[in-house]
Amino acid sequence: MLGSVEEKILNIIDNVKDIFGGAHNIRKDGEKFDRSISPNINIVNKTDKSGIDVIVKPNTKGESVHIPVILTQEGIHDLVYNTFEIGEGSDVDVIAGCGIHNPGHSKTQHDGVHEFFVRKGAKLKYIEKHYAEGEGQGKKVFNSKTILHVEEGGKVEMELIQIRGVDSTKRETEIYLGKEANLVITERMLTDYNQDAESHINIEMNGENATAQVISRSVAKADSKQVFYFNVAGKNKCRGHVQCDSIIMGNAKVNSIPSISAEHNEAELIHEAAIGKIANDQLMKLMSLGLTEKEAEDTILKGFLR
Amino acid sequence: MLGSVEEKILNIIDNVKDIFGGAHNIRKDGEKFDRSISPNINIVNKTDKSGIDVIVKPNTKGESVHIPVILTQEGIHDLVYNTFEIGEGSDVDVIAGCGIHNPGHSKTQHDGVHEFFVRKGAKLKYIEKHYAEGEGQGKKVFNSKTILHVEEGGKVEMELIQIRGVDSTKRETEIYLGKEANLVITERMLTDYNQDAESHINIEMNGENATAQVISRSVAKADSKQVFYFNVAGKNKCRGHVQCDSIIMGNAKVNSIPSISAEHNEAELIHEAAIGKIANDQLMKLMSLGLTEKEAEDTILKGFLR
Repeated sequence: MLGSVEEKILNIIDNVKDIFGGAHNIRKDGEKFDRSISPNINIVNKTDKSGIDVIVKPNTKGESVHIPVILTQEGIHDLVYNTFEIGEGSDVDVIAGCGIHNPGHSKTQHDGVHEFFVRKGAKLKYIEKHYAEGEGQGKKVFNSKTILHVEEGGKVEMELIQIRGVDSTKRETEIYLGKEANLVITERMLTDYNQDAESHINIEMNGENATAQVISRSVAKADSKQVFYFNVAGKNKCRGHVQCDSIIMGNAKVNSIPSISAEHNEAELIHEAAIGKIANDQLMKLMSLGLTEKEAEDTILKGFLR
Repeated sequence: MLGSVEEKILNIIDNVKDIFGGAHNIRKDGEKFDRSISPNINIVNKTDKSGIDVIVKPNTKGESVHIPVILTQEGIHDLVYNTFEIGEGSDVDVIAGCGIHNPGHSKTQHDGVHEFFVRKGAKLKYIEKHYAEGEGQGKKVFNSKTILHVEEGGKVEMELIQIRGVDSTKRETEIYLGKEANLVITERMLTDYNQDAESHINIEMNGENATAQVISRSVAKADSKQVFYFNVAGKNKCRGHVQCDSIIMGNAKVNSIPSISAEHNEAELIHEAAIGKIANDQLMKLMSLGLTEKEAEDTILKGFLR
């Protein structure tokens, strides 16, 4: 049975009805809490380390796999390795929300490595949401690494979202694109207080006509720090476009360090980055409609991170 | 007396008539070749190392200083330190062309460090052109470092141009901007054959309302390699905009690694980079007007690097 804290967190990082409506593996405080499989989607424990193998049969369409992780105790360091086989010609969603409720004063940390094999012509939508809260002073930390191998004609849509409450995060994403593989990454990041966040995205376009697009938006408030390393290498005829926008407030610091590398004369790569404060005219407009400055700010930030 | 090779090279990296029309210091094969000063602009040898001090009196307006360097022998490694004092309220041009004619098979190299103190309200236009040629297999190498300290209200316009023929170059540019200082850098780079080029531009905006703009364009042909590191840090209320466009051809490789770092909530920083081949529709249009593919290509590249 889910407690009220668990249910609340699951609904922030995913949706309880959706989770129980499909194949799922709920991990709580470092252990399996609940699992369900389908005729097309199998989930089995790894035998050599902590984690699961998710195997999606070829041509599985319209199904989803939910693998939320929740940590509800202080002083936990959870470490998990998950591997995903997304069978040829399939079309599935994988939702990997992760939430920490740290009630105490010692650190709670979740580290996860997710490796995906997206087979020929398969379509994957991958959503990773991070959220943390807690009554005490205990730090809430996430370190995640996602590795994607996308075979010929594979399509991947990724949403990487840090909702709020995470004291420290280091997120590494490595992607290898085969022939005619297509990738769209949407990243959203909010940091506040003394939080720090580091996001690395490395994309290698190895196959002919591979395409990649990254749209990253972040808001850094108070004394928080964000660093972005986006690295796109075009090793064949390909197209890549990276766009990162950050709003900076208070004493926050944002550093964006992209790298585009063309190693083929038909590689077309574009990078755009902008860091700045909230546009004054937008603030003024909302305030002229009766909102306080704080309300106007919140409205703009919410729209920006949507 | 100038020989024909010297005159030819001086006219590529600068203009002989302009050089002799103003204050100048021509350095040839590691030694002073000719010098002229003006009532407002003094040039003196450094006593502790190879190089000169150029001192522009406050409020000097409309004058120019030409300090071309030419190397006409094989096997030379010329190293020079020049310091420039650009007096308060002055408005001058400094033209620092550098050309190598290497007739032999051993390497000829010019390394230069230029440090500028642009005083309060002064205006400086700085042009640095690199060119190399030679009959033999001797490498032509340039390594240059330019450091600029720009005081309150100072304005600097820089043109950094690598014309052609340079086998290897590492160019480092470091700029510190004070209050209301304004900087515009235009960079043009052409590499061909097995040439490699590395350009670092570090801009620190320390003063309130400092502004910086970098417009870099490059063409990489054949087996050449280019790497760009553009680093803009906003440490106060400021605006920075970096734009780099590269055309890649043959087996060339181009890597653009910018970094924008906002350390103040009123720092507004933008970076844009694009690497790609010559636009097909432009080629087609010129070819439909009767140009061969090679002529059309050359016309487009010339326009791009203008």
